[in-house]
Amino acid sequence: MAQYQAAPLENLVDQFEKMPGIGHKTAQRLAYYVLNLSKTEAEALAKAVTDAHEKIRYCSRCCNLTDSELCPVCKSPARDHGVICVVETPRDAAAVENTHEFKGVYHVLHGAISPLNDVGPDNLTIKQLLARLGNDSVSEVIMATNPTVEGDATAMYISKLLKPMGVKVTRLAYGIPVGGDLEYADEYTLAKALEGRNEI
Amino acid sequence: MAQYQAAPLENLVDQFEKMPGIGHKTAQRLAYYVLNLSKTEAEALAKAVTDAHEKIRYCSRCCNLTDSELCPVCKSPARDHGVICVVETPRDAAAVENTHEFKGVYHVLHGAISPLNDVGPDNLTIKQLLARLGNDSVSEVIMATNPTVEGDATAMYISKLLKPMGVKVTRLAYGIPVGGDLEYADEYTLAKALEGRNEI
Repeated sequence: MAQYQAAPLENLVDQFEKMPGIGHKTAQRLAYYVLNLSKTEAEALAKAVTDAHEKIRYCSRCCNLTDSELCPVCKSPARDHGVICVVETPRDAAAVENTHEFKGVYHVLHGAISPLNDVGPDNLTIKQLLARLGNDSVSEVIMATNPTVEGDATAMYISKLLKPMGVKVTRLAYGIPVGGDLEYADEYTLAKALEGRNEI
Repeated sequence: MAQYQAAPLENLVDQFEKMPGIGHKTAQRLAYYVLNLSKTEAEALAKAVTDAHEKIRYCSRCCNLTDSELCPVCKSPARDHGVICVVETPRDAAAVENTHEFKGVYHVLHGAISPLNDVGPDNLTIKQLLARLGNDSVSEVIMATNPTVEGDATAMYISKLLKPMGVKVTRLAYGIPVGGDLEYADEYTLAKALEGRNEI
């Protein structure tokens, strides 16, 4: 293929192929899509890439992605700044936001403690979280890290740091997913769902 | 989400979401991938988009995509210019090229005749194909349009134009795919495979 396809096309396919979850065939489809765009559309796409990369930075309070000093959530007077939901990534914050159930604010760790991947507490934004607790009157910190070994370890680590500060630390509930099928739930999830059963 | 995510990020997600086969979640994953690129990498991606769009044009002979007057295949003295493989899209030409079995040249129609989608013979590069037959000493034209109603109709239409010119027109064989399972082959494919059976 290398000699067969024109270099600029080959280069674009390579660029797409580097993206997560994009294989060679999808990369080719995307490259042909780009070729079929109008000049304006192609320029808009290229500009969106550079713009996002140049303008997006971390919110100085919650470390989520934003294009200003503070992110829209941290800026909003309508949010409850006394409840902080701690998540691993900006995508996790977006997932919680999509429930439309959470009215507090976020704190994005940008990862989870994982000795295997050389990620320790110092690589996360834990210091910034502690600083927020010193300044603001925070009533509750919800640990919404992923239900994985790394996420659990991170949640435990942070809760041990926060408890001496007298702040309430909670963890997302484990259980069977809504619309799921008991038969297909794994034994650990089912055990957690039993353990956390509520009176109806 | 619109108020929640920063505008440049939102814009990038929108751009990715327009691409074929990319849903909202994948678009978000790709956007975060772009944010995690280094400045140089992000610029290379943006440049690949504009470059491909600016530099890629149709080969003046076979109408495939290229960045020069003639595509590498049409330029190559090692290819058999007397055998033309007619395909619907550049991706189909790439698929044939990937077999490493075809030593002839291509002709890309950029579509198939489809009255429902307002695509008639004049919207395809059929005129250019006829011009090639006038100039070159072509011994065979292989119709490698898709095995669909539109592809078949296009192959029939073109073969009717070519036959009076005394050129041999062939069509890709229909049959069961290699590694396939008879049980799962649809009845039309199986009927075609029976019809086209060969002595062993």
